Amino acid sequence: MESVMNCADEQQPSSMANLWSNKQESSRTQKAKGGFVLVHAGAGYHSESKAKEYKHVCKKACQRAVDQLKAGALAVEAVAAALVELEDSPFTNAGMGSNLNLSGEIECDASIMDGKSLHFGAVGAISGIKNPVSVANRLLKEGQKGKLSAGRIPPCFLVGRGAHDWAVCHGIPSCPSEKMATKFSLSAYKRNKRKMELAERMDTGHSQTKKRRQSNENGNGSGCLDTVGAVVVDLEGNVAAAVSSGGLAMKHPGRIGQAAHYGCGCWAENARNIDSYSTAVSTSGCGEHLIRTMLARECSAAMQSEDAHQALLEAMQNKFISSPFLASEDRVLGGVIVLRCCTCVEAQSSQNIQGKLVEFLWSHTTESMCVGYMSVQDSKAKTHISRLPSGTVPGQSLAIEGGVCRLMGVTE
Amino acid sequence: MESVMNCADEQQPSSMANLWSNKQESSRTQKAKGGFVLVHAGAGYHSESKAKEYKHVCKKACQRAVDQLKAGALAVEAVAAALVELEDSPFTNAGMGSNLNLSGEIECDASIMDGKSLHFGAVGAISGIKNPVSVANRLLKEGQKGKLSAGRIPPCFLVGRGAHDWAVCHGIPSCPSEKMATKFSLSAYKRNKRKMELAERMDTGHSQTKKRRQSNENGNGSGCLDTVGAVVVDLEGNVAAAVSSGGLAMKHPGRIGQAAHYGCGCWAENARNIDSYSTAVSTSGCGEHLIRTMLARECSAAMQSEDAHQALLEAMQNKFISSPFLASEDRVLGGVIVLRCCTCVEAQSSQNIQGKLVEFLWSHTTESMCVGYMSVQDSKAKTHISRLPSGTVPGQSLAIEGGVCRLMGVTE
Repeated sequence: MESVMNCADEQQPSSMANLWSNKQESSRTQKAKGGFVLVHAGAGYHSESKAKEYKHVCKKACQRAVDQLKAGALAVEAVAAALVELEDSPFTNAGMGSNLNLSGEIECDASIMDGKSLHFGAVGAISGIKNPVSVANRLLKEGQKGKLSAGRIPPCFLVGRGAHDWAVCHGIPSCPSEKMATKFSLSAYKRNKRKMELAERMDTGHSQTKKRRQSNENGNGSGCLDTVGAVVVDLEGNVAAAVSSGGLAMKHPGRIGQAAHYGCGCWAENARNIDSYSTAVSTSGCGEHLIRTMLARECSAAMQSEDAHQALLEAMQNKFISSPFLASEDRVLGGVIVLRCCTCVEAQSSQNIQGKLVEFLWSHTTESMCVGYMSVQDSKAKTHISRLPSGTVPGQSLAIEGGVCRLMGVTE
Repeated sequence: MESVMNCADEQQPSSMANLWSNKQESSRTQKAKGGFVLVHAGAGYHSESKAKEYKHVCKKACQRAVDQLKAGALAVEAVAAALVELEDSPFTNAGMGSNLNLSGEIECDASIMDGKSLHFGAVGAISGIKNPVSVANRLLKEGQKGKLSAGRIPPCFLVGRGAHDWAVCHGIPSCPSEKMATKFSLSAYKRNKRKMELAERMDTGHSQTKKRRQSNENGNGSGCLDTVGAVVVDLEGNVAAAVSSGGLAMKHPGRIGQAAHYGCGCWAENARNIDSYSTAVSTSGCGEHLIRTMLARECSAAMQSEDAHQALLEAMQNKFISSPFLASEDRVLGGVIVLRCCTCVEAQSSQNIQGKLVEFLWSHTTESMCVGYMSVQDSKAKTHISRLPSGTVPGQSLAIEGGVCRLMGVTE
């Protein structure tokens, strides 16, 4: 297993490990107040030629979340706002510009989790809705209101036509499916369809893994990019996570990926006591691999360990690449963004300053992963396309990077 | 919290705790050879007047699984056979006779997990298929075959129309939806519809919990019964679990419950080493509660503790009734059937006898739960309707019962 350990946060380039191991550490304090957001535009393959667009989308998504946080929104609202921006980009495989399925239709999955209430909302295989995450968020909100008439339990997960109709009933406008396809997604569909027909004619179904991999590497962005997502911690220290995906290219109609699956696409859990961390995770990659390993929840649980970097490294290695649940897979494809947050107190002159130490990381076994992050105090988001070290094998190796951010607030 | 601790296995009426704590214990050995099945016909409310029918269904389901086991089938085939029988009964809320949704349609969820391969298959909100579990089982099998043409990953979870079409494409016959409704389910739908309309007119949505509970207690079987399921251990010691449900009565179209949800409806995991147990779990009850607590997987994980009864008691109390994920719920409704299995060796005269110690339990917070169980050696299944102790409150208290069975085989 190969791993990369870079600090992508230019403001914290050196001793990240030291910072991580010391919750009370008082030096190099950032002046940021309030919340923090980390987004991703998919773990998969990001061509150099489109790097600028991917980074731009991530920047805009971070800005949307930070605008919400500055306006006093809770983490769950900020994370939903970031997702809307990611979905609206024609360059990501979510919402607008999603991969087409086997029938040439767009069916989206999305989910959102609020670490404060631990409520969850998800939609699967939904068509004709521009922002699937908005439906997931509305399901979460309706769930928080308690029972429906005659004691009926409100749903937390709706799929297909029923999900679409529920959304429209709740004031979320319908969007003609043809408006959600892009020139790029349509041409990728035609290319994939030809490739599939050729493969079936050649009866290469099970044996030509190598050829398949090469064709992936040749930059079929639509087929390789996956799920987008975000994790947020707000002014009060609440965490939230969300995820949205058009799913695998040429998937069977009705196929549900991890983005709609509880514990697999995203996870958020506020700290339950002073000694634990609030954690938020969003995943990307091959949905079936992420479902069967419940990677979001596994990474969240791992984040209660002392050393966040080591914990994520071990989780990705033991609970994903080497997971007994994926023993029959030759390549295990996925990526995660993770944040954890704890309260730290420090005495400075006459004031007690209470702040949050936010540690954020991303890791992937895919060739690349595009991320962006920003705190409320930053003037603009930082973005980064993380790549596997050259010579390592996607699906068998991983990259892991991250940074630290301090959010300070004067309490007295 | 109230709990009941009875041994329902009449062949093992006394010191169950002793048996459970001693994997090598050599006395009171049953002469059973081969596999074991435990089924349930839902955690909910089972009226005394229909007790005979519920028990009869459970008996038939056990027999079907045992027939498979005797014919040398693996656990996963036996569990699927038991489910088909449970689905085919008009008395259970699964397959034939399922609850109708808000639009008066039947939409079913089902899933199956093989503890040997750790593969999983699920369908959600599927209409027009008599045995949803057969589609889930076929998805599991197709997943085990590896990639599709052009390197596409086979789906493990399909919903709605796409799931139906995939099933038909794979040779599973379609069944007109009107044939799946029963006189009972149709009249329950009409009754529920009237009740809902009345409740909405009276605007009683949030305040009349007490009244709602009373109406449940009055024997609206269709609205209260839920998911059916089974757990099996086979001749080789492989475990499997499955679950199937018509979902909550008057659910929104497209609503997915725990029966289609990985980690929530069923779980099966073969022992990975000599010191661990093989475990299988199937759940029933309010889908949203079972999803948000991932009860199947939690109970499976708990079963690695020394004392199975104590472990399940604690899991049901701490991970379900008092779960922080359901903090806002006044009543937490669900039930589980669980089995765990380990190898035990004993020397008898000149032979080494290697056998399996199977511990099986059920627990529920609903008013009742109907179960049946049978080993390959038994001439017929035993059945039981477990009820909460009188005076305790459903959703806040639990019942827990179980038994032990030894499966012996001469190895040399």
